[in-house]
Amino acid sequence: MIFVGERINGMYKDVKKAIRKKDPGVIKELALAQSEAGAKYLDVNVGTAAEDPLDAMRWLVETIKPTVDTPLCLDSQKIEVIKAGLEAADGTHTIINSTSGDEDKLDTYIPLAIQNNAGLICLTMNVDGIPQDVDTRLNIAATIAGKAMEHGLEMDRLFIDPLILPLNVDQKQPGYLLEVMSQIKFLSDPPPHIMVGLSNISQMAKEKATKELINRTFLVMAISHGLDSAICDVLDTALVDSAITAELLLDRFIFSEAYLKAARM
Amino acid sequence: MIFVGERINGMYKDVKKAIRKKDPGVIKELALAQSEAGAKYLDVNVGTAAEDPLDAMRWLVETIKPTVDTPLCLDSQKIEVIKAGLEAADGTHTIINSTSGDEDKLDTYIPLAIQNNAGLICLTMNVDGIPQDVDTRLNIAATIAGKAMEHGLEMDRLFIDPLILPLNVDQKQPGYLLEVMSQIKFLSDPPPHIMVGLSNISQMAKEKATKELINRTFLVMAISHGLDSAICDVLDTALVDSAITAELLLDRFIFSEAYLKAARM
Repeated sequence: MIFVGERINGMYKDVKKAIRKKDPGVIKELALAQSEAGAKYLDVNVGTAAEDPLDAMRWLVETIKPTVDTPLCLDSQKIEVIKAGLEAADGTHTIINSTSGDEDKLDTYIPLAIQNNAGLICLTMNVDGIPQDVDTRLNIAATIAGKAMEHGLEMDRLFIDPLILPLNVDQKQPGYLLEVMSQIKFLSDPPPHIMVGLSNISQMAKEKATKELINRTFLVMAISHGLDSAICDVLDTALVDSAITAELLLDRFIFSEAYLKAARM
Repeated sequence: MIFVGERINGMYKDVKKAIRKKDPGVIKELALAQSEAGAKYLDVNVGTAAEDPLDAMRWLVETIKPTVDTPLCLDSQKIEVIKAGLEAADGTHTIINSTSGDEDKLDTYIPLAIQNNAGLICLTMNVDGIPQDVDTRLNIAATIAGKAMEHGLEMDRLFIDPLILPLNVDQKQPGYLLEVMSQIKFLSDPPPHIMVGLSNISQMAKEKATKELINRTFLVMAISHGLDSAICDVLDTALVDSAITAELLLDRFIFSEAYLKAARM
């Protein structure tokens, strides 16, 4: 499982404040804590915290880089912010998060990823919006995989994100997503990664315990349908335990009484 | 989700002792507690507790019947013990647990179920043993569904159990089982129920917390592949919460902040 720690995001109050004050303490702590908890990447999103998002992205990358070796997942809908992050990352491996599945966008982002030693998250949505059915999502996923092959982006660098919406927006979506995930693995051999921004699904829940239960339940369901990466709260021990156990049950490693501990090493 | 409470089983020390002494207290308590926790059926298995298993089965059924309205799941590999239970149940609805998928066995057990207002659990195994692959399990499931139709057992009364083994016996089995479950639903329209004896999967784990984590993780995975019933520890709140949440995510009922409570009503 490729865990991407979600916490360095200007959406969170502590991070927002740190970005505004250029106070590295909180950022370094979150980088360390998430890396120790098993994050393979750290998502970095300036949110709406900064007047100058390019400068904020550069500052975040330059603050995290000397703190941990964990590569970054540069998260912005604006290509200029991504480019500022890539520049600061200075050729070290990153993931670009994200582009839609429109062909012109893919023709821009895929070469950008290749030139910068980066992976790329591609959302199964396009100019027409977020598809409400399985087939349209799969068609967009096929376009994405096709464009990756055309440009020569290795499948191991491609993350297809079928886009989770909050459960109360449309309760049929999680079921659709599981079907989409089951089929994405047949798009190419080797298949691309399947990624989700997990916490979105429980956005409408008020209680933290309810959010966490919904998140970890959907994560386990999704892993059993082919999901292999998620941007999520890696500091939620029960979530990580559940994902490790799902992978145990799919024979990814051998059972021992201490499998949870062993999987974190 | 059709939860079948597993606890009235001579395998457990307290139940074994109660059966030997014909002490109804523990049995009545377990019947009440499991029913209140959401059990739709109560499994009843004399285990190896009794010298006379027929008498023990009769006593258990007669002890539980006046205590709760929850129907029973009569659990034995010996048809005489099942028949003793059916006689004591006296025409009230039960489930017979279980028969193998051998044609001669099905020709005996299916009419027995029909005559006695009972459901029937059929295991995807036969005289050749427990199949180690998806296709043989599916072939046996098809035989089972075919025999049910031939004899006129409604699909709503048929529970196909693809048989979980302890994880350490063969770690490929849980993955196979998920595939089998995904396909059983295509055997007939309406489809049969898919059932598992859940706790078996974690038998090798020593720690209770590890057992419970493995059980609830596999249950969630299985629900997302079509499982709709399980013999399990309904007194394990985290297990029941996880199953309810999996069903929420499959749009079986509408989200509200109090969905866990609402689903238990």
